[in-house]
Order: sequence, then C-alpha cells, then structure tokens
Amino acid sequence: MAAIDQVLSTIDHNLDAAVQRLFGLLAIPSVSTDPAFAGDCEKACQWLVNELTGLGFDASLRKTAGHPMVVAHAKAKRRDVPHVLFYGHYDVQPADPVELWESYPFAPHIVEAPTGKRIVARGAADDKGQLMTFVEACRAFNETGGLPCDITILFEGEEETGSPSLPAFLAENKTELKADLMLVCDTSMWDQRTPAITTMLRGLVLEEVVIHGASRDLHSGMFGGPAINPIRVLGRIIADIHDDQNRVALPGFYDGVADLPQDVADQWRALDFDPRKFLSEVGLSEPAGEHDRSVLEQIWSRPTCDVNGIIGGYTGKGSKTVLPAQASAKFSFRLVGKQDPDKIVESFRAFVRARLPVDCRVEFIPHGASPALQLPFSSEALGRARRALHQEWDREPVLAGSGGSIPIVGAFKKDLDMDTLMIGFGLDDDRIHSPNEKYEMSSFHKGARSWARVLDALSS
Amino acid sequence: MAAIDQVLSTIDHNLDAAVQRLFGLLAIPSVSTDPAFAGDCEKACQWLVNELTGLGFDASLRKTAGHPMVVAHAKAKRRDVPHVLFYGHYDVQPADPVELWESYPFAPHIVEAPTGKRIVARGAADDKGQLMTFVEACRAFNETGGLPCDITILFEGEEETGSPSLPAFLAENKTELKADLMLVCDTSMWDQRTPAITTMLRGLVLEEVVIHGASRDLHSGMFGGPAINPIRVLGRIIADIHDDQNRVALPGFYDGVADLPQDVADQWRALDFDPRKFLSEVGLSEPAGEHDRSVLEQIWSRPTCDVNGIIGGYTGKGSKTVLPAQASAKFSFRLVGKQDPDKIVESFRAFVRARLPVDCRVEFIPHGASPALQLPFSSEALGRARRALHQEWDREPVLAGSGGSIPIVGAFKKDLDMDTLMIGFGLDDDRIHSPNEKYEMSSFHKGARSWARVLDALSS
Repeated sequence: MAAIDQVLSTIDHNLDAAVQRLFGLLAIPSVSTDPAFAGDCEKACQWLVNELTGLGFDASLRKTAGHPMVVAHAKAKRRDVPHVLFYGHYDVQPADPVELWESYPFAPHIVEAPTGKRIVARGAADDKGQLMTFVEACRAFNETGGLPCDITILFEGEEETGSPSLPAFLAENKTELKADLMLVCDTSMWDQRTPAITTMLRGLVLEEVVIHGASRDLHSGMFGGPAINPIRVLGRIIADIHDDQNRVALPGFYDGVADLPQDVADQWRALDFDPRKFLSEVGLSEPAGEHDRSVLEQIWSRPTCDVNGIIGGYTGKGSKTVLPAQASAKFSFRLVGKQDPDKIVESFRAFVRARLPVDCRVEFIPHGASPALQLPFSSEALGRARRALHQEWDREPVLAGSGGSIPIVGAFKKDLDMDTLMIGFGLDDDRIHSPNEKYEMSSFHKGARSWARVLDALSS
Repeated sequence: MAAIDQVLSTIDHNLDAAVQRLFGLLAIPSVSTDPAFAGDCEKACQWLVNELTGLGFDASLRKTAGHPMVVAHAKAKRRDVPHVLFYGHYDVQPADPVELWESYPFAPHIVEAPTGKRIVARGAADDKGQLMTFVEACRAFNETGGLPCDITILFEGEEETGSPSLPAFLAENKTELKADLMLVCDTSMWDQRTPAITTMLRGLVLEEVVIHGASRDLHSGMFGGPAINPIRVLGRIIADIHDDQNRVALPGFYDGVADLPQDVADQWRALDFDPRKFLSEVGLSEPAGEHDRSVLEQIWSRPTCDVNGIIGGYTGKGSKTVLPAQASAKFSFRLVGKQDPDKIVESFRAFVRARLPVDCRVEFIPHGASPALQLPFSSEALGRARRALHQEWDREPVLAGSGGSIPIVGAFKKDLDMDTLMIGFGLDDDRIHSPNEKYEMSSFHKGARSWARVLDALSS
C-alpha cells in the first residue's frame, strides 16, 4: 500500500471520531462581532491550541487587541519539502434571527438529507467544518509516519468582522509566518461532486453611516414639514447609489475593474450554471445586479454595493409620530481587480457629504477595507493541486471566482508576497450567515482526504 | 364676591393639592402603543374614574377592544344650561430613548426654571396635565355651589396610537355622548402669556410598509449583486415620495387642499413668529418643507409626509455582510382641509406597489387614518371663549392652526355633528413625545382658571 493510501484509509476509519471533535468546536458560540461572546472566542481559540498540541504541533494562543490567534508549527518527516501556511478562522457570524433556526445554533447535530448526512450548526461550513478538514488530514499523516510538508497553521477569530487585528499581527510576526505558499479552506465546491479552486476573491469595504439632524427627537405633528428627517437623507443616498442599470454610481468606482480574459469567460459560459435555479432556491427569479452582466459575473467578477442594515426612529410595535434625531445604515462594497479600497472609501464619503442637507452632519464608522485578489493561472502549485483534486473527485476542478472576501489572502500577498491556494468544500446551499447553516458529511470526509492528497502532491 | 371669583379663588387655594393629584396620575406609565403597559393603561383609567366619582360625577370604566374609556356625567345646579362634552386622553407616548431623560420619566417632580416652576414627567403636557386643568376647574365649581353647565367627560387611552377603538365606541354610545359642544384640551398656547384657540387641526394617516425579498437572509458575498435588497427598495420609495420642491409626490395628494383665506394669512403674518428661532431651538437652521410656504403654514395648514421609523438587516454593533430578507418603515401623513384619508392610503399603496421589483412583495399595516378639521370663525361658542380667555390672560387669544392630530375631533364632527372648542395650555418647548417632557406650572394653574371662566361664559 502506497503511503498516501494509508493516510486516506486512516481518515476513513477515523471519521466518526473526527465528527465528534468538530462538534466540540461547534458547541462554542464564538461570535466575533458581539463583545458579549468575547469569552467564547478565547475558548474556541484555546480548544484549537489544545487540539494541535495533541497532534505534535508547537501551538500557542497569541493575544491581540481583539480576539486571539492560534499559531502552530510542525516539521515534515523529510527535509527539503515545501513549507505551507494554512489559514482558517474560528469565529462565526451572529446566529440571529435565532427564532428561524430549527434547533439551537450551537447544538451541533447530524441531519439525514436526500443528499446524505449533513452537520447542522452555526459555523458548520463557515469556517469550523472547513478548517477541521485540514486538521484531520494532519492527524492522519501524524498517525501514519509524519507530515509531508513543513506546516504552519494560523487561525484567527475576527474574519467575520473584517480582521481588524490582522495587519498589525502580520507585521509583528512576518518572519514566523512566512512560508512558500498559503493554503486557505474558506471557499466552495462547484457542486457536491465537483471540486473547485478559487483563483479570484472579491475585496470588501465596510462603512457605517450615521446621519444626525435635529438636536433631539421631535413630534412630527409639531415639526413635520419644516424639520429635516435623517431617514429621508439616508433614503436619498441609498436611492442614488445605483443608477438605472444597477451600476454603482460613485465617481471612479469602476477604476481598476477589467473585463474577464476571453478564455475564462468561455470556461464560465460552458459551466452548467443555471441562474434561474440559483435565484429560485432563495425565492427570487430576476437578477438584480448590473443589467449587462451574467449572474456568475455579478457574483464572481463584478464589484457591488449593498446596504446590510438600516435603523432610525421608532421601530417597536404600533406607531409613534416621531421625527428622529438620527438614522444609520451599514454599507458594504465588494471589490474586484485592482479597485483601491481607500479610494472607494473616499469616493463614498464624498458622495454622502454631497447629499447632506445643511442641517445634518454625518459620522462615518469604518469596519474594514481589503482589496480583491487574483492567483496567476500559470502557478506551479495550482497545477499540482488541480491534479490531486482530480484524483480524489474523479473530475476536473473548476477554476472559480468568489463573491465573498477573505481579507488575509490580500494581506499575505501584500505584506509577505505569498500566493494562496483557495480550496474549500462548502456548497452554495450551506446557508452560511443564515439560520440552519450546514456542512455536508461528504464535504467534511472527502475534504480531509483532498487535503491529504494536496499536501502529498505539493511535496512530491 | 361674584360666583366666578369664588371659583377662581378656590382654584388658587387648592393649587398644591391639585399638583399632588396630577403627580398620582403621571406616576402611572400608561404607554398605549406597547402591549406590555396594558395593565398600566387600565390603572390610569380607573384612577380617573375614582377621581371623578369623588367630584360627584356618575363615572365608569368602559371596556373596548383596546384600552378602556372613562365616561362621566354631572348636571349643573341650574336647568336650561348648555351641555358640554370634555375630551382628553390618559395614554402617553413611549418614554424611549429612556437614557436621554434626566430623571425617571414616570417619577413626576417640580423643576425651577427661569420662566417659573415646571412639572417634569412623560405625559405632563400630553395630555395628563392638560386634562387635569379641566378636572380641577370642575372641582372648584363643585366646592362652591355646583357646575355651571351639564358636563359629560370622555377620556380615552389610545390617542397616541390613532384611536383604533374610538369609532366603534362612538357609534355604540352616540346618544349618551351627544352634547351641544365639545371641549378639548390637547393644544398649545401662542406663548407663555398669550392663550390660543385652535381652529384648524391636521389629520393623520399612519401606514407601516414591510418589503419582503428573498425567502431568507443571504450572504452578501455570495448573493450581493444578483439578489434584490429590500432596504434598497425602501430607499427608492423614500427618495421618490418628495419632489425637488419638497412637495409630496403621491398622485392626487393635494386634492382638497385649499389656500388660506386672505384674512387668516394676514393674521399669521402679523404674529411675532420667528422661524429661525423655532428651528434653532432644536438645532436646525433651514426649513425642510415645501419651498414656497412659510414655516407657520408648513406646520399649521400644509399636508406632509414623514418616515417615523425604519429597520432592516443587521443593526447591532460592528458589521454583518447580510442581505436581509425584509425591511420595514413606518410612514405618516399629516392632512389638511378636505383631503380624504382613504384616498391618501390608496394613493400611497399604489405608489409603493409601482416601485416594487418583481421579486418583492409588500405588506401594509395600517395604524389609523383621520381627516383634518376646521371650526367656523363665526361660531357663537368661539366668541364667548375668546372673551373669557381675554379676561384671564389680559390678551386676545390667537386663532391658531395645529400640526398635530386629535382624531376624536374629526370623529365627533362626522358622527355627531358636534363642533369643538380646542383650548390648551401647552407650550412649543414642552418636549412632548421627547425625553424630559414638562408642563409649566403657570399653564396648569391658569389653565384651570381659564376653564372655569370658559364654562361660566358658555352658561351666561
């Protein structure tokens, strides 16, 4: 039996125990955006340190200004092998609205579905289930003679909030974290049987806007008419930020956005992607993005603007005839190509200020800004990973784009000049960031096997 | 000593005890819009029943589908006197934002201000302090020989939520409530030394709009672009509902809106009203209403549209890259002249539906609709009340309009063909519906004296 077959067979035998380990991590409500869960974030971090220490890693919890990091190192059995850095995040999105979950979000359990078993819990797919595929691959190597590459692991706890502590941490630990290649497991497969390697990631700018009007809440009977209403100001900004072709109307917004190379455009057109099905699964029928772009372009290779939240005035039951003193909205921009996050922020703020009546003032609260990223198609590591995945899944992996953002990939490219292989086993219907998030058992099991094959291929 | 002087002197002597009685009522948090306070609404209702019973009224608590009513009757000492119906409301607006109060909103107390003593509590001015001026006038008559008019009193507990139970209650109790004239004390003085009789009241339409998009909350990385965002739909509606002259853009909105008669327009222009001061007291400088109308017109005689609340998506701390499945806003319309509330509702709903993308559906939640009201300047009762107020305050009362709405005035005009004298002692800076609501001691004291004079004048 070849060494890699032994590793794969060990993963198969260990599956039940691996699921139980994952359940232990999923039971910790490590919601990073809400300070009430800070203790749980640290708990999840320490859980991972303990786990990796048990696998022979030199693992430690590293404090930051926000939630702590896990850093772990282990050497291969051989010398002269590549050194890879694996990145994941142990933090999760808030579980709200909790009332829409069919079970408690932090009580992980198995559900039998027509497509097979699935693991249900907040974080099952994003990103705890995914990062554990890599840890379980390391465990199988460890039990069968040792790792094929030198491995450094970095798990952060602020990915869902734009990774505010990451830049400083990278700057302070450059030497320790530098490797030949970064591996990231926070992306999706093409479908349940077809793997994908993500080569394009959208960037993300998060800006909260607070509009202040009168010095106090007013009675709309007494002041309705002459007094400015901050909700109206926000309404105008939201209405103006897209034109009638659903393009983003910020001046300079599309600077640095290139059209797709013809061969990639052709590959995407050949994919069996059904935009109608993609939308109908969430109750929609008509693409709401740029009129002249396909749905796949809209989510993989085009920049967007969205409002993720808005609040102002009386929002309880019944009515209250109030003119609120303030109203606020959370905006996000998905970036592609060479769009400059700082210039987008600047343009957005100018756009808001230009729509500010004389009696209003605006407050901007930045929640993070990261550029988009693209991996060269000619990369040697990409070729090895494609072959390894082909072997495991018996299908050619799709070279995909991704609508979501993984800030660290940009940061490592910028600060350490490291390329990143993004391989993940999530599915489009995993309900990440939504109630009843799940991760397919096939993703978890074959995900671990895939990483074993990729690590083996990178060291051959 | 004339009989009326005895009554006035009794009011003067009873002032401290009257303030203590008012405090008893203010201490009950009878917030009508929030079901959590239903018990307190009933408590306030029963408190008034007991009070009026003690003054010789035949008073009772009347159940409704919502909060209960107080109905009380008492006869004059003489026959062949007018029969008046006095209306007030014991419910109050929510106290939120509670953190902006300098003291607990339901712990009434006296504050010494440069303009004299004031009573601070939620409801001090709107409407508990005001209705108690009338009750205290009745007490003084009761202690000095009896009432000058036959009096029926109606206090409701749903004024702040658009009086949903009132129409049915009026229909069922028409005969019992019918009188020669209605008196209402829910309006303001011109200033602290100049009384006012309100002859024009704006109507009110309250509509909540819920926009539903995708079948669940979505991740903006995965769906941002092709998926419709209900917050954007609301933003478009809010932006479109006013034109660039700040006129309301609903088709047919201004049907039934007449310009002011020349003599009233002249009287208003002659008033010492300073729009700059009116706005600067709440931190504003520029009128935000219709460009070609004065501020006094904007609040007294012009219709408006406002958004009183909006909510959608993630509104907690930090960021969440969610595309919400729904978003909602509470709209209100102030009506004047002969604007038809039902037609406004119809026009608004058509306006919203016309802006609904194919993948959204809309839910409308009505919170009340009442027309505007106008008292003829030639009314006999108006003449008597003007003379009585002139005697008390030594100034001619201003014949004012009011931006706020008192639904019952319209209902009594429509169903019982009764005219209404609206006399109130509130001031523009009373902060009704806002934190730190207050009522001037001079308003409370001279308000009771004013009612004594008006009742006396009506029966002469």
